[in-house]
Amino acid sequence: MATELVAPPTPAVAGGLSPGLVRERVDAALAAFLAAKTDSAPDACLPPLVTLLRDFLRGGKRLRPLFCHCGWLAGGGDPGAEQPVVVGAALELFHAFALVHDDVMDASDLRRGRPTVHRALAARYDGTGGERAAERFGTSGAILLGDLCLVWSDELLAAVEVEGGRRRAVRRLVDTMRTELVAGQYLDLAGTIGSDGDELRRAWRVVRLKTARYTVELPLRIGAVLSGASARVLNACGAYGRPVGEAFQLRDDLLGVFGDPAVTGKPALDDLREGKRTVLMALARRHATAAQRAIITALHGKPDLDHDEADRLRAVLRDTGAVTRVEELIENRARQALAVLASAAIAPQVKPRLAELVVSATTRTR
Amino acid sequence: MATELVAPPTPAVAGGLSPGLVRERVDAALAAFLAAKTDSAPDACLPPLVTLLRDFLRGGKRLRPLFCHCGWLAGGGDPGAEQPVVVGAALELFHAFALVHDDVMDASDLRRGRPTVHRALAARYDGTGGERAAERFGTSGAILLGDLCLVWSDELLAAVEVEGGRRRAVRRLVDTMRTELVAGQYLDLAGTIGSDGDELRRAWRVVRLKTARYTVELPLRIGAVLSGASARVLNACGAYGRPVGEAFQLRDDLLGVFGDPAVTGKPALDDLREGKRTVLMALARRHATAAQRAIITALHGKPDLDHDEADRLRAVLRDTGAVTRVEELIENRARQALAVLASAAIAPQVKPRLAELVVSATTRTR
Repeated sequence: MATELVAPPTPAVAGGLSPGLVRERVDAALAAFLAAKTDSAPDACLPPLVTLLRDFLRGGKRLRPLFCHCGWLAGGGDPGAEQPVVVGAALELFHAFALVHDDVMDASDLRRGRPTVHRALAARYDGTGGERAAERFGTSGAILLGDLCLVWSDELLAAVEVEGGRRRAVRRLVDTMRTELVAGQYLDLAGTIGSDGDELRRAWRVVRLKTARYTVELPLRIGAVLSGASARVLNACGAYGRPVGEAFQLRDDLLGVFGDPAVTGKPALDDLREGKRTVLMALARRHATAAQRAIITALHGKPDLDHDEADRLRAVLRDTGAVTRVEELIENRARQALAVLASAAIAPQVKPRLAELVVSATTRTR
Repeated sequence: MATELVAPPTPAVAGGLSPGLVRERVDAALAAFLAAKTDSAPDACLPPLVTLLRDFLRGGKRLRPLFCHCGWLAGGGDPGAEQPVVVGAALELFHAFALVHDDVMDASDLRRGRPTVHRALAARYDGTGGERAAERFGTSGAILLGDLCLVWSDELLAAVEVEGGRRRAVRRLVDTMRTELVAGQYLDLAGTIGSDGDELRRAWRVVRLKTARYTVELPLRIGAVLSGASARVLNACGAYGRPVGEAFQLRDDLLGVFGDPAVTGKPALDDLREGKRTVLMALARRHATAAQRAIITALHGKPDLDHDEADRLRAVLRDTGAVTRVEELIENRARQALAVLASAAIAPQVKPRLAELVVSATTRTR
């Protein structure tokens, strides 16, 4: 675990706003934007959807806005400036889009400890057609709310005051982020079909496309580009961001199987029932005995997996050494990121903040 | 019908490119964009999705790019310029996004005479889990392809070379269009719940939000704003565009019930089985006898409606006078648009083109 690697806590505003203050300002920007959307709604059907979105946004970790803020500071941006806050809010709305659609695709029941958007909408359905009609209504409404998040994220981004060259550079990164995310999601989806190709390599590709770049490296670089950072700073952002992003997803995979639902806010069995093809699972399969492999084949992806079966799968993940290996991969990546930081050509006062984020991204429990 | 109202055919390039040439140039812009996306795909899973999108895009009417082109000309833009072509291509991708997600929400089987995206993807599924898993794969893939269309539409739009003030004005209209479309879709969805409120008024609101503005008025205004049109031209675009957009949707509603599937490319019974709350249906209900109302209540929205039952519903639509009324509404709107054109403060050479579009939008068979 990387807990012992963290730098001592820094004073609240050294090198920029404290994480709590960044979150507060991003939340205020989101609240103001959504209030304006409610006021200017073209139809009375929209405000209840906005309320649902507001509820959904509560409880997020705001990691992407935090990385964006650090990128901004790393490039020498003014700590109190408005631009990284608005861009951070746009990234958070983009993230909401990704989660809402992801939950529809995975048919998940819980997110952030509350019913997912499609479940919440289905519960409101008061028409005819029974359960199936309610489910359809929930799914359709969630697709639309996700679409709205994507559209509004874009609208927020376009509202940022920034000169032409930087605007185009930010756009290029945002465009890359969006296409990669969709490609990663699709690869993940298509990856649950059959078992062709090298499972471990494929799992790593999904990690990189679907989460790693979009959670850490790109928000960081977007913040840096926004502040007009030099190529050296941008390279440092990449060298730091890539391992942190990967470690973040590896931790996520562990939490998906071993996490406490009361803390993660997600059901304990979803990833196993869904048969999510993680690096963790690929490593287990690679190092499994014939008997262990048979357990994985029988139970991983079993839609009605029960708690005892889940425990048997968890035991295989431990006994094959896959859990330990993944913990090592996480720790290596955390160390690598901290090593990059030590020599990186970025403003020194940002480094403790980035070191803290290594820890919160890799040792989190939710 | 409005056929007799049309101005005589105009020479191919009077007042701008011929509709065929506009379509050709927009298609070329889309092809080039998608080829670049294939070349730069972050993963090998993406190109097959792009191929699917390319197939989907074939056969569209390109109405939005045509209206955008006319708006550009109305504002005095150079007929050979690139900007309205690229914006037109962006509008077409946005339309693709709307259709792909709409087909998922409506669980439609056919679009443009071919299987819908989610059906095409489901048919490719070669994993385990049987029909239900294939259906889930198709739905998820179609959600992602729709997301990609939305993201790429935005990317194309941002690539248009245009000075800051006009860029912001175009953005405002695009933002309005996107939020209205989602609101209209949601209203339509929520509108199939229960039967509260004034059905006819609600049906009109859906027409305006979901289709009318987004198909005609806004593409036209976007083209006009792009060319720096005056407020008078923009007002004329609105006064012309609103009735044409409404007539377009009213025709669509008639085609959804009475159209020839071989020509519309959509199944004959979908709108009736879905219980689509159209102006046509609301008018029928309003003017129905008790016996006719009982037929509507029993059959409209019946998921397994058969051809005989559909014919009984169609007879009610005719016998209540709803069909005639809708034809009158269409004709009135076509006349109104042509009257606006006659006195509008827009470049005279564009007027015959806009008159032609009144006809193609309102008397079409697909």
